[in-house]
Amino acid sequence: MTETRQPHVVVLGAGFGGLEFCKHFRHPRAHVTLVDRTNHHLFQPLLYQVATAGLSAPEIAQPVRAILSDHPHITSLLDKVVDFDLANRRVLLEENTLTYDYLVLALGSRTGYFGHPEWEQFAPGLKTLDDALQIRSRVLLAFEKAETTLAAAGDESLMTFVVVGGGPTGVELAGALAELTRTVLRRDFRRIDPSRARIILIEGSPYVLSHFPTDLAQSATEQLKRLGVQVRTSTRVKDIRRGEVELDNGEVIRAENILWAAGVSANPLTKKLGVELDKAGRIKVAPDLSLPGHPEVFAIGDMALVMNPDGRQVPGVSPAAMQMGRHVARLISDELDLGPNRSPRPRFVYWDKGTMATIGRSAGVAMIGKLKMTGFPAWLAWLLVHLIFLIGFRNKIAVLIQWAYSYFAFKRSARLITYLPPDPATNNHD
Amino acid sequence: MTETRQPHVVVLGAGFGGLEFCKHFRHPRAHVTLVDRTNHHLFQPLLYQVATAGLSAPEIAQPVRAILSDHPHITSLLDKVVDFDLANRRVLLEENTLTYDYLVLALGSRTGYFGHPEWEQFAPGLKTLDDALQIRSRVLLAFEKAETTLAAAGDESLMTFVVVGGGPTGVELAGALAELTRTVLRRDFRRIDPSRARIILIEGSPYVLSHFPTDLAQSATEQLKRLGVQVRTSTRVKDIRRGEVELDNGEVIRAENILWAAGVSANPLTKKLGVELDKAGRIKVAPDLSLPGHPEVFAIGDMALVMNPDGRQVPGVSPAAMQMGRHVARLISDELDLGPNRSPRPRFVYWDKGTMATIGRSAGVAMIGKLKMTGFPAWLAWLLVHLIFLIGFRNKIAVLIQWAYSYFAFKRSARLITYLPPDPATNNHD
Repeated sequence: MTETRQPHVVVLGAGFGGLEFCKHFRHPRAHVTLVDRTNHHLFQPLLYQVATAGLSAPEIAQPVRAILSDHPHITSLLDKVVDFDLANRRVLLEENTLTYDYLVLALGSRTGYFGHPEWEQFAPGLKTLDDALQIRSRVLLAFEKAETTLAAAGDESLMTFVVVGGGPTGVELAGALAELTRTVLRRDFRRIDPSRARIILIEGSPYVLSHFPTDLAQSATEQLKRLGVQVRTSTRVKDIRRGEVELDNGEVIRAENILWAAGVSANPLTKKLGVELDKAGRIKVAPDLSLPGHPEVFAIGDMALVMNPDGRQVPGVSPAAMQMGRHVARLISDELDLGPNRSPRPRFVYWDKGTMATIGRSAGVAMIGKLKMTGFPAWLAWLLVHLIFLIGFRNKIAVLIQWAYSYFAFKRSARLITYLPPDPATNNHD
Repeated sequence: MTETRQPHVVVLGAGFGGLEFCKHFRHPRAHVTLVDRTNHHLFQPLLYQVATAGLSAPEIAQPVRAILSDHPHITSLLDKVVDFDLANRRVLLEENTLTYDYLVLALGSRTGYFGHPEWEQFAPGLKTLDDALQIRSRVLLAFEKAETTLAAAGDESLMTFVVVGGGPTGVELAGALAELTRTVLRRDFRRIDPSRARIILIEGSPYVLSHFPTDLAQSATEQLKRLGVQVRTSTRVKDIRRGEVELDNGEVIRAENILWAAGVSANPLTKKLGVELDKAGRIKVAPDLSLPGHPEVFAIGDMALVMNPDGRQVPGVSPAAMQMGRHVARLISDELDLGPNRSPRPRFVYWDKGTMATIGRSAGVAMIGKLKMTGFPAWLAWLLVHLIFLIGFRNKIAVLIQWAYSYFAFKRSARLITYLPPDPATNNHD
């Protein structure tokens, strides 16, 4: 690249990694184009609260261009990536073709079904706002159907919820569903008793939250059971059909709502890059996060398989994606200043600030350094951390009020059944 | 009906009229069944704020069964009315058949297209939450397309918005769209200038808000123009096609977004009752709001054509529907106490507390008794009245914060493009 031309940095994806890059990359000469297929940045860690009627969609999502309003060197485009032309440094979008000097891949992950894509229609995952709004409608509709439909009397499957996968998302979903049925909905029905709903959490390994130390994982299982969740560990799913989950022990559970929280895989676009991928489709990046053979292309967040110097894999969590975004922002900015004579690039090192998961009202587990917490303190720590990192001043206030309201009033404010697209897996409600 | 059996009151529709009936009807012996095809009561006067990204859906809608949680004598059913059997005092629903002693019809109105139902696909109306969420997505998407699509350069129609109908909904929509483009979106785009968007309001009569006195209607027109809305009065729509409005003077306006706020008609189920209807499908009720020949059936709200003693028609506004709901609640309760020996029933009289409409930031018109207001005082009065009547303590606080945020920060918090169903009238965005 020459000095006379404005260097162009293209960022694909406005999740935690891509957005953090954009916020920290400021270079007097460079221009940035940020591409996302939605118009909003999503605070994914709170998505399960939209799915369980605790928060409204706008409270956890903000328009990308509003976040970057004060960054005149960034152009934000609503467009979809179609293909890459790495040799000619071009990205092909549906509506545009962009030529770059640097490319930052931050397209995140998708729900993965372990080679069973046909399960998706019967067991939706939770990755986008639309996913969350549809799950919310379907969960609430199950209770409405049980109350309204005389034919449903005695049909236990309407009030049975199966959550597949005992990672943070599955645990949070199961806990929130238990609370919804045990407290929020309890007094609002006349013919059915929502507190008798069954919430079944299925996990293949011996513990839920298996990335935590065993004592914390055990505590999480206990806390879930206390909330009324049936926890089935060391249990795998053999098949999922319409309204039915078949387990590896042959048992069949009939459930109107089956929610999938068991696996993620990198955005399938990684397959178009012609570089080495791991089993989950993640790019095996160099220590500086660049693509092998393409020092001008970087992959960050859930798209990248990154190893820490200690040989442990960097987890697919938002703090890691954000640290990667800052690392690449600094690296590109330095390189633009120093010119093409490359000094050895710094390697990325993940700094683990701690891990936490909420389970429900006053329940959770957290590990910050050597400090382990369970129950109320863990829940409070989770609350504070998520409020601090939630983007946008107004959103923080609004979410704080919602949470205070839910906590003290035992109510949820977003119990709306709105648009349900026609779906073969569910009765259409028009 | 005999003393030994529990009298059954069936209420169809959980809008302002039906809900107000339920809240005020308390009789020691009677049981009430409330039927609605959605699970929420909608605060329709604020629907245009959801459509223009100012408020989130849960802020203006509450689950019906949560509102009636403390009324154990009321059963709430999510079901759809299919037909009536007035002779046998039965209502046929999709999932249930209900036998009643008293029936309260409160099914409201629909968007009416003056005999042109084919216009609906090109010019959506604003009656339900789904309508509002779709309009929000389409309006925001137009700007995204203008910014993203190189082919759209110079295509004025993407940033042209036509609102058909200069009643309160049309005026509020046009004003809110003008504000959205002039203030909120102004700094967020790089290739287009949203403040150059054209907002065109079309009204057949010589003034907008023609139910107000002429001086107020004139003021409303002036205030709209000051916000940047092109107001075309004494202008009628001849035809609506995909992305095009043809006016009666032959002019054709190309616009990606055409919004319909020109007409309402009563719920078409009124046709199944076998009673006399007016042109808009409303039931010509007796002075006590009962159906002629069916003293046990009442129609309230937008379904009913009601004349005040002075010969003027009661307007189709929420205070009128609520007053009718209370009137019928009192009437049935008294009659259950006094038994079958009917004294002459009291007639319904509408008490007009005033009329107001907001136009935009610090703009509006209001008439309370003989007192007329325009501009900031009218806007402030509108704000207070709508906050007071908004159902639900938490919603009031949340809406107040949103409004304060929008007013002082010139921002809107619900700028989300979410699920857009496939529609022949729009490019599908998946």
